[in-house]
Amino acid sequence: TINGDRLWDSLMEMAKIGKTPKDGVCRLALTDLDRESRDLFIKWCKDEGCSIRIDKMGNIFARREGKNPDLPPIVAGSHLDSQPTGGKYDGVYGVLSGLEVIRALNDAKYETEAPVEIACWTNEEGSRFAPAMVASGVFAKVFDLDYGHSRADVDGKTMGEELKRIGYMGEDDATIDAHPMGAYFEAHIEQGPILEDEGMDIGIVTDAQGQRWYEITLTGVEAHAGPTPMTSRKDALLGAARIIELVNKIGLDRGPLACATVGMMQIHPNSRNVIPGRVFLTVDFRHPDDAVLADMDAALRKGVEDIKSGIGLDCAFEQIFYYAPVPFDTSCVDAVRKGAERGGYKAREIVSGAGHDACYLAHVTPTAMIFIPCVDGISHNEIEEVHKHWSDAGGQVLLDAVLAKADE
Amino acid sequence: TINGDRLWDSLMEMAKIGKTPKDGVCRLALTDLDRESRDLFIKWCKDEGCSIRIDKMGNIFARREGKNPDLPPIVAGSHLDSQPTGGKYDGVYGVLSGLEVIRALNDAKYETEAPVEIACWTNEEGSRFAPAMVASGVFAKVFDLDYGHSRADVDGKTMGEELKRIGYMGEDDATIDAHPMGAYFEAHIEQGPILEDEGMDIGIVTDAQGQRWYEITLTGVEAHAGPTPMTSRKDALLGAARIIELVNKIGLDRGPLACATVGMMQIHPNSRNVIPGRVFLTVDFRHPDDAVLADMDAALRKGVEDIKSGIGLDCAFEQIFYYAPVPFDTSCVDAVRKGAERGGYKAREIVSGAGHDACYLAHVTPTAMIFIPCVDGISHNEIEEVHKHWSDAGGQVLLDAVLAKADE
Ligand SMILES: NC(=O)NCCC(=O)O
Ligand SMILES: NC(=O)NCCC(=O)O
Repeated sequence: TINGDRLWDSLMEMAKIGKTPKDGVCRLALTDLDRESRDLFIKWCKDEGCSIRIDKMGNIFARREGKNPDLPPIVAGSHLDSQPTGGKYDGVYGVLSGLEVIRALNDAKYETEAPVEIACWTNEEGSRFAPAMVASGVFAKVFDLDYGHSRADVDGKTMGEELKRIGYMGEDDATIDAHPMGAYFEAHIEQGPILEDEGMDIGIVTDAQGQRWYEITLTGVEAHAGPTPMTSRKDALLGAARIIELVNKIGLDRGPLACATVGMMQIHPNSRNVIPGRVFLTVDFRHPDDAVLADMDAALRKGVEDIKSGIGLDCAFEQIFYYAPVPFDTSCVDAVRKGAERGGYKAREIVSGAGHDACYLAHVTPTAMIFIPCVDGISHNEIEEVHKHWSDAGGQVLLDAVLAKADE
Repeated sequence: TINGDRLWDSLMEMAKIGKTPKDGVCRLALTDLDRESRDLFIKWCKDEGCSIRIDKMGNIFARREGKNPDLPPIVAGSHLDSQPTGGKYDGVYGVLSGLEVIRALNDAKYETEAPVEIACWTNEEGSRFAPAMVASGVFAKVFDLDYGHSRADVDGKTMGEELKRIGYMGEDDATIDAHPMGAYFEAHIEQGPILEDEGMDIGIVTDAQGQRWYEITLTGVEAHAGPTPMTSRKDALLGAARIIELVNKIGLDRGPLACATVGMMQIHPNSRNVIPGRVFLTVDFRHPDDAVLADMDAALRKGVEDIKSGIGLDCAFEQIFYYAPVPFDTSCVDAVRKGAERGGYKAREIVSGAGHDACYLAHVTPTAMIFIPCVDGISHNEIEEVHKHWSDAGGQVLLDAVLAKADE
């Protein structure tokens, strides 16, 4: 069994790196703070006798050998990067519960058949570098290495440059070819309200919703807010406002499972008495049914076209990220279900609303996820919170699922 | 008569300071570039034998003595600061046509009765530090000195600190009390399309519209864009979008003279997959009739209240800037009209859509303005352009108006 107190202490220790005034975490991918968290994680793994490999996307693998070193490892993992105003658990929980699995195996001096590894994936959040899960995407061969290295932040710094700068551009090939796996498990907070509302401790994640991300740039004419008549304006921000309303309606109109969000916007020149000449905005669509997602896409394209011509704006429109809904591996999902039963936890099946590294891993290896609730379903927020007994439960189910596969 | 080529050359020389790739100017108030433009202006004035005074708001006065040094000076001026993506003429034209008046008087060795001065006002644009025209406002005792010094930019740097840093915190009291004037004239580009559309060279500015500026901060709950159902969101950006649409409608509904603009917005945390938890936005209202402006204000307050309760947002709402429509001094306006007649320029009366330092000066001294057209009415844009014969005409009318008052 796992040691829940030790897992909790490690979570709190890691949360000191990038701690924000409101007790959250700001640890954007490939910043100095991200490096600090990686260094600490590697130190903890080495203390447990693990060997470390780092690949060309900065993904870290910490390995505990099994009886049979020829078997592919059973891997548990997630990510250490956070949102600008993120919480202490999103991602970190999956990495450190993986570490707790290895610590518990060491405590018990238990030798598994297959090796057990912890994976820490680079830039899962997609906040500093879009899209999300880019390094697990390279691992799953959805993106190639050049694409991964060339992703740039708003200042134009690329992932390749920043990996080198923080010393985490490893030697290993960054794909599954160089690193076959027996199975992959990811423990994570739900980031939505369902489990807590129903009094559940564990979510047995069967699927993840599909996503489409867009970038839109509207260009009008910047001009003086005083002497420029309303009727002769080409106001890019007015266009953006109409797109925000459209996106919201597209989400609302497609039932309780659809999500549609404008999360980011840049306004140019962003001066109080200037009619905005250019606005950049992003759109994030999600749905578990790929056909509905396609219908949302069509509605967006049509609506944006109408809005831009209505005002007389130019418009650059690009879908920059898409993945279809992902079904997880039934035998891995079963391992999670059995772990929850064995522990006597209240559990239900659930569809993931967020994207996770597990979604890409599922393309190339048998994969499943374990959710634990988070308070009020809030995440991507400094006030993100988890009750300790949820954390204990998730760690225990992860240990059980990993063992089931490692000794299969 | 003025030397139009010399005026034009000085305009082009000054435009090199803060030149942007698209041939505009970025010279935000109290930056190093603003200092450079001030230094050059003072050098040119000293070359003409002027004495210089600088007051505690960084306003610069360059003086050419008259026969009767006891008479209050007749002042021509404007500002050297620009928008982030501004043009070569907005403000600069008024300062340098004032300089050309003095150069022309020197050429002719003409001695006026009253002294003639050029004024260069700090932070007219209101882009780096809100509100606009803050230093001429202190001069006109609309704001006190502490208020002026405490205005801060988005990084929290105050005007007081930045005046000291660039070496332009002068010794003189910054109000009209220490610096009485006989009259104030400001030559400026129209920044709207009327003069050019009607084939006019000169606008005789009789009034300036009233303005109200607002700051609104909407606060919702930031949460994950994936697993957070549409119906349980408190999306601050959706609220902002509705306010933008409202502001646009308030402007459109009140006829051709009303202007209503959202020019600036800051979104928090501004991450693609996070529902925005906080948005700051600004509103700029203008109308020549104070009663209509009050009605626009009422419509905004009511509309914002409905929008915020509709989504369940918190809202901080503040009017940060207001001035009533300003009528200019009839005898000064007459001096401009006669100057235009004498030069044989096509001229019409016009109401200023923009705010100008002249609007505050009008509170404390007889004041008028001279407009010249700008191409397509575009300003607050790098492509802002003026035909040279317009520049010549404005300089000549300014000389005539100044002389009429200086020799009265
Ligand atoms: N789990 C998580 O927050 N992932 C970020 C990618 C997404 O927006 O779904
Ligand atoms: N002339 C000018 O651009 N003034 C700035 C203040 C305003 O927005 O009216």
